[in-house]
Amino acid sequence: MKKNGTLVFGLLIAIAMGACATREKNDNEPLILKEQGSFMIGGTVIQDSGVFNTNTPISPQGQTLHGDHAYVFYQIPNAPRHKYPLVFLHGAGESAKSWETTPDGRPGFNELFLRKGFPVYLVDQPRRGKAGKTTQGSTIQAIPDEQFWFETFRLGIWPHYFSNSQFPKGEAALNQFFRQMTPNTGPYDEKVIAEAMSALFNKIGEGILVTHSQGGGPGWRTRILNNKVKAIVSYEPGSGFPFPYGKVPSPIPSISPFGALTPDSIPMNEFMELTKIPIIIYYGDHIPLQPSKIWSEDHWRIRLEMARMWASEVNEQGGNVTVIHLPEIGIKGNTHFIFSDLNNSEIADILNNYLISNNLL
Amino acid sequence: MKKNGTLVFGLLIAIAMGACATREKNDNEPLILKEQGSFMIGGTVIQDSGVFNTNTPISPQGQTLHGDHAYVFYQIPNAPRHKYPLVFLHGAGESAKSWETTPDGRPGFNELFLRKGFPVYLVDQPRRGKAGKTTQGSTIQAIPDEQFWFETFRLGIWPHYFSNSQFPKGEAALNQFFRQMTPNTGPYDEKVIAEAMSALFNKIGEGILVTHSQGGGPGWRTRILNNKVKAIVSYEPGSGFPFPYGKVPSPIPSISPFGALTPDSIPMNEFMELTKIPIIIYYGDHIPLQPSKIWSEDHWRIRLEMARMWASEVNEQGGNVTVIHLPEIGIKGNTHFIFSDLNNSEIADILNNYLISNNLL
Repeated sequence: MKKNGTLVFGLLIAIAMGACATREKNDNEPLILKEQGSFMIGGTVIQDSGVFNTNTPISPQGQTLHGDHAYVFYQIPNAPRHKYPLVFLHGAGESAKSWETTPDGRPGFNELFLRKGFPVYLVDQPRRGKAGKTTQGSTIQAIPDEQFWFETFRLGIWPHYFSNSQFPKGEAALNQFFRQMTPNTGPYDEKVIAEAMSALFNKIGEGILVTHSQGGGPGWRTRILNNKVKAIVSYEPGSGFPFPYGKVPSPIPSISPFGALTPDSIPMNEFMELTKIPIIIYYGDHIPLQPSKIWSEDHWRIRLEMARMWASEVNEQGGNVTVIHLPEIGIKGNTHFIFSDLNNSEIADILNNYLISNNLL
Repeated sequence: MKKNGTLVFGLLIAIAMGACATREKNDNEPLILKEQGSFMIGGTVIQDSGVFNTNTPISPQGQTLHGDHAYVFYQIPNAPRHKYPLVFLHGAGESAKSWETTPDGRPGFNELFLRKGFPVYLVDQPRRGKAGKTTQGSTIQAIPDEQFWFETFRLGIWPHYFSNSQFPKGEAALNQFFRQMTPNTGPYDEKVIAEAMSALFNKIGEGILVTHSQGGGPGWRTRILNNKVKAIVSYEPGSGFPFPYGKVPSPIPSISPFGALTPDSIPMNEFMELTKIPIIIYYGDHIPLQPSKIWSEDHWRIRLEMARMWASEVNEQGGNVTVIHLPEIGIKGNTHFIFSDLNNSEIADILNNYLISNNLL
């Protein structure tokens, strides 16, 4: 069933590729917006005991702190051509920058989909980026770790890129890529993130949620909280796969320094929410199907495996989850940042075609 | 001389007000962009000693950390009508959000000036917002302090707004305003910020720098580093007024919890750079000219006083600095966030007229 779906899907892609010859031209045309703006959404308020006194303004007594909200920047094309906006949630150590201009200066998914006629919402999740105001403190350390991320994100094995890598070449692009990471300002909390995301959907109405990596976990939870999420697109979800109580698979061991991958468990009624919408999950290249001696490959092997187990479970309960391992449909060399790789406009077209085929436009 | 300048300026404003009757209409027209995007600029790289080993990827040995850059989001109108772009640098505890949609949802200076035909660059300074990756760690605390900022930013005396306040009314706006603060991820360092700003001007070429509050200090330093800064507009600079060695005034005492305001000192040759460009400084309402028993008013009294001393010193050396205390030209009720107050389109027109009168368009 899934195999057939993948084949049909591949055909759709092949057809679409031919129809997209005018895309390059469009990218140089003016971008015409009906509206753009930014706002904070969700979050909570804490207050110190006592009463504020203007004569002791440094004392926290009676003072408030609004924190744990998300920051959202949005753009609406002058003539939206689709019924649902796209809402983008970044992954670990990243901000909405993930979806903007690529490390080598090409349009990111924000602009590619804006030009396809979608309203686009870019989120900095609570305690990250412009949404740094947190109700819980933390310590930020400056420990060099970029070679570790180079490998985790499957650009290659440091200092070598994978020979077919879709990551843009050259020092300048790698410099931009390393700099787009930005730390948590407070503890990572999937629940806090999902609540802010749900508040966003309450504000903007029905839409399609696009997540990356660690954003996958709060993404599923957002749909459980809010049925205005009409579909989820997840690029390389890395954790937080929620199974129903009693049907939770064992952790999958790995030589990854992150250790084994342990699934989450949730009540069946919550799980059932995830069967009600189309969900598509994409993984890139250099993810083996068998255990690998290269830890970064093995790290993603267990995630692809878990994603497929999770998809089977959702589909068994009547859901509509598709997992696409891109090399299996002939698309090679993608890193963990599929949507900003050199072939990102092809990747965007593939997503667009998925949305068409699921009547989500 | 300055008095006359202020009068002539007031007249220019009065004339311009009449010419702006079509503005509201324009704000509802589509926004047409030639280009937009984002990038990281400036910063440094630190590296741990030793050699990276993929088998011990968690060890920092030999690994790098790219940090201390700025994040920049830019938009270029389809038909730019001016020779210089505007580069916006926020103040303490803020990000580029300061210049975006106002707390009550109106267009910020980013869009107001985009619609006037300026390319617009919005900066998150190093160690803030999306530019959070830092080469020096820090501890972020979650201490309630918003009533303190309500007063420091001259919205009123908590819980009362000043009766003529230009801050938008209602809980929703105040909620947005409190949430737009975001913490430093590393130590505040004016030099680090100025170096990233200078790198930005090297990338984009000549432009006009617009600063707010604490951004004033790194703003002056940016011009000292880089003569591509062709003018500086500073809204309520709060610290970092640089005087030449031997001409540094005494600190001005105040009942402000921030204490006395101490000027900076720099070599005369650096100071002379600041005499070469037009500089305009604006302060809002509720800043008395004599010591006040209201600490937040007194806090700004010494800043306005220092700004005027600094302007005199620069002008004495042949410079062109204007200080506008808005109530003195009949514009009342402005908070510390002049450019996002209810009258921000009037404030934008005033700036636009200043740029016209200084041949900066």
